Amino acid sequence: MKMLTEMKVSDHKKIIEVGDVKIGGEDLVIMAGPCAVESREQLLAAADHVAKEGGQILRGGAFKPRTSPYSFQGLGEEGLKYLAEARDRTGLKVVTELLDSDDLELVNSYADILQIGSRNMQNYGLLKKLGKLDTPVMLKRGYAATIREWLMAAEYVISHGNDNIILCERGIRTFETATRNTLDLNAIALIKDELNIPVIIDPSHGTGQRNLVSPMAKAGISAGADGVIIEMHPNPQEALCDGQQSLTPDDFSQLVVDLNRVAQAVDKSLAI
Amino acid sequence: MKMLTEMKVSDHKKIIEVGDVKIGGEDLVIMAGPCAVESREQLLAAADHVAKEGGQILRGGAFKPRTSPYSFQGLGEEGLKYLAEARDRTGLKVVTELLDSDDLELVNSYADILQIGSRNMQNYGLLKKLGKLDTPVMLKRGYAATIREWLMAAEYVISHGNDNIILCERGIRTFETATRNTLDLNAIALIKDELNIPVIIDPSHGTGQRNLVSPMAKAGISAGADGVIIEMHPNPQEALCDGQQSLTPDDFSQLVVDLNRVAQAVDKSLAI
Amino acid sequence: MKMLTEMKVSDHKKIIEVGDVKIGGEDLVIMAGPCAVESREQLLAAADHVAKEGGQILRGGAFKPRTSPYSFQGLGEEGLKYLAEARDRTGLKVVTELLDSDDLELVNSYADILQIGSRNMQNYGLLKKLGKLDTPVMLKRGYAATIREWLMAAEYVISHGNDNIILCERGIRTFETATRNTLDLNAIALIKDELNIPVIIDPSHGTGQRNLVSPMAKAGISAGADGVIIEMHPNPQEALCDGQQSLTPDDFSQLVVDLNRVAQAVDKSLAI
Amino acid sequence: MKMLTEMKVSDHKKIIEVGDVKIGGEDLVIMAGPCAVESREQLLAAADHVAKEGGQILRGGAFKPRTSPYSFQGLGEEGLKYLAEARDRTGLKVVTELLDSDDLELVNSYADILQIGSRNMQNYGLLKKLGKLDTPVMLKRGYAATIREWLMAAEYVISHGNDNIILCERGIRTFETATRNTLDLNAIALIKDELNIPVIIDPSHGTGQRNLVSPMAKAGISAGADGVIIEMHPNPQEALCDGQQSLTPDDFSQLVVDLNRVAQAVDKSLAI
Repeated sequence: MKMLTEMKVSDHKKIIEVGDVKIGGEDLVIMAGPCAVESREQLLAAADHVAKEGGQILRGGAFKPRTSPYSFQGLGEEGLKYLAEARDRTGLKVVTELLDSDDLELVNSYADILQIGSRNMQNYGLLKKLGKLDTPVMLKRGYAATIREWLMAAEYVISHGNDNIILCERGIRTFETATRNTLDLNAIALIKDELNIPVIIDPSHGTGQRNLVSPMAKAGISAGADGVIIEMHPNPQEALCDGQQSLTPDDFSQLVVDLNRVAQAVDKSLAI
Repeated sequence: MKMLTEMKVSDHKKIIEVGDVKIGGEDLVIMAGPCAVESREQLLAAADHVAKEGGQILRGGAFKPRTSPYSFQGLGEEGLKYLAEARDRTGLKVVTELLDSDDLELVNSYADILQIGSRNMQNYGLLKKLGKLDTPVMLKRGYAATIREWLMAAEYVISHGNDNIILCERGIRTFETATRNTLDLNAIALIKDELNIPVIIDPSHGTGQRNLVSPMAKAGISAGADGVIIEMHPNPQEALCDGQQSLTPDDFSQLVVDLNRVAQAVDKSLAI
Repeated sequence: MKMLTEMKVSDHKKIIEVGDVKIGGEDLVIMAGPCAVESREQLLAAADHVAKEGGQILRGGAFKPRTSPYSFQGLGEEGLKYLAEARDRTGLKVVTELLDSDDLELVNSYADILQIGSRNMQNYGLLKKLGKLDTPVMLKRGYAATIREWLMAAEYVISHGNDNIILCERGIRTFETATRNTLDLNAIALIKDELNIPVIIDPSHGTGQRNLVSPMAKAGISAGADGVIIEMHPNPQEALCDGQQSLTPDDFSQLVVDLNRVAQAVDKSLAI
Repeated sequence: MKMLTEMKVSDHKKIIEVGDVKIGGEDLVIMAGPCAVESREQLLAAADHVAKEGGQILRGGAFKPRTSPYSFQGLGEEGLKYLAEARDRTGLKVVTELLDSDDLELVNSYADILQIGSRNMQNYGLLKKLGKLDTPVMLKRGYAATIREWLMAAEYVISHGNDNIILCERGIRTFETATRNTLDLNAIALIKDELNIPVIIDPSHGTGQRNLVSPMAKAGISAGADGVIIEMHPNPQEALCDGQQSLTPDDFSQLVVDLNRVAQAVDKSLAI
């Protein structure tokens, strides 16, 4: 791959450690939780279920990037506090989105993994600041970014000093409208084969439909992903965002069982 | 899915029989062989290996759709004869592309499954003629066709009388250039969940790179595909077309083993 | 442009003659008429108006490529007869779509220009047969074909003996959904600059909205197109297809006036 | 257009004033200059030529968003100082890119128009801060943003208090690779017809090739754009970025003449 010559591949870490959770080895990681932190009650219920089923990392957005300025923008610091409470209670680690460099210190003081969303993948000022931290960064692919652009965005963080990079494929924008995005598993197979850095698959955003999350999670693991990030809501019907693609707790329990079988078929396992 | 209301779903067959091979049930099907039939020797060597490893169906193009009129266009009827010889010798069934309605009778007299290529997916005159036959048709998705357009193309064949339709996802055209196409496994998960008609995955065209064929074949099966179609060449270095994405015989042997493990993890099996 | 080396550019005609109408020179050509021939009355009313406003070529489909087999498929030969009658009555030339090689003789006996639609751009069997004729061929760009693929499709016709090729840009498929297609005027500028073969712009399909047809027709002429093809219906509200993008007769009259001003600003003129 | 209901259209300004330059009325605006400010000498030579030919606004990047962290990142404040010197010398206004909110005060103290680049179109934190300023903002379309997303990004700025918004279409990402991007003039026609807010066309990034800049600039004006932004370099061969798409000074002089003719044909004029 010619893009390899553009990168300092020797600086790339193969396994990222988040406390005692390792991302990139034989044990797959499960990240799950609601799209947005909506209330203390909602988040704690979600966290309890994720922990019970063997997940390692709790997801939940406190700052939400919304296409319209008139949509719900997240609970902000209040949401971060609930995430911290859920962590204390369950032992789960926390991944949450950092939307703006103004909030870097605040979000970094709560998060175990800083998530950079699709729209910010080429926000180079932000990427450079992340390079000065030690906190692991989960860099989602821009919804229309080529694999090369995505890897070069990671290179911004790495070249500025932080080699704790986890990639996340969350679907790209194509002409197809029957699904919310087109999950590009080719990208996962390519990156794992040629660079072997950690990549997580997000079948929730990648499909936009609850009924496709499980088959595509399994497909992502088969293609080589090191874990999944799943939207799950105690009551998807009432979700403030992305309810259509959120699993119910029961769906999630079943997913973990199914995923474990596929994991073993590709010589991986769930740390459950 | 609203497109369901546009279709006569009750006419759709869930399992297609090609002689004693069943496509769409618990047993997965393996189709494999060279991109183009290049010579008797090449084809028989490929066929022998496919049969030995437990494949059921031999692929190989006698009429090749090429972007340039100055490229190799296939051996024509000579190629069909080699396919027939290989079938007699190995017991494999034959799938081969029908490019033009003028060749319909000729190709139909040799093929067990008529393949309609990506460029002809909306060649409605041809689709209507296929509707008058009993031969199973494998309809590849147009490289920029929506899922709805693809299903409606199948509907042309079905509504004209032939319900032996197998779909084949072979990658769509997107902005990404690191891979030849973007394999859209969402489409497979969606079709299996909502229609449950047979769908085959083509990871060779879907990726364009030999090293990605195995992970994406496994991913396709995990997403719900009923089988794979694989380009394999006795000597990929010398292939007249698509050498870069063709497996070697050894790669293919390994693929079958790996695929069987994944198949079992999703309650399927290879008929090997 | 590297693709130039793949073509026999010396075989490419710069000006195509359709009777006394020349396409590709300083005089721009106007093609207009309904999407589909729906009735004798509808077609003659449209033809009269096109002729009155100085158009040279009447469009109208007798065989319609429809995504669904259950949609209106055109009047067939009856539609061709109305086109011939309109030609006799007005002196306009006729461009109409050839959908299937079975109808080649029939459609060729009525048409002054054979239109090959977007879905058939890579129907190579059909293209080869067109190469055996003298009739001018208007080759629409496949809705997801690259410029290179489009030019190579033209090369199929030219290399088989017919150099009367007119290209037609009608919009490509992208992620944008606010318009029906994305009209790719870059393609027109590129082809005119590097090959200077005739290219027509279709702002009706290229936008899908009546209110955008006039500005995009003007834009197409400014980019270098040799003419326009416009959907106009005596009563768009009642059109059997594409009513939303069809101009009213009054809109069309205004368009011709506006277009003539832009034509002169780029050293062209309308032959009105 | 349903998206209209999502916006507070009454807050949208139809004409933006930048000192005595008006953007959005009958007089078209010409913005031109090099991709990046490379040196004092280069910038002043470019500015002198833009002013001489009747341009109103000088472009030039001091902070450059580059895909690779190892590429030239711009001169920073030194570049801004040269822009200010060029303004004092020629009377041109200055448009330059703001890349990061940390530089907001700095860049704002030099720029007459703050340019937000394609990669930052959905950097909502930055957009909100721009809402607190009075400085006109030129918001480039994200290279894969829908028209709706682009307008909603503008809405972020407007709803936070700054209604001095100029849009800029700079090409979108499609499957076509013969040109750098696909210039989407449909978007210009649509926005002018339905919202009538100022839109500038960037044919340099929109095509990526010098020979296509002039026809596509003319096409953009015909589609309804309120002006152009053109990359011009005193010596394109030596440009540190985008040399291939930069006009020479002579090309630029000719472009202004040609553009004026097309402008008049659509009832606009250049303020030259």
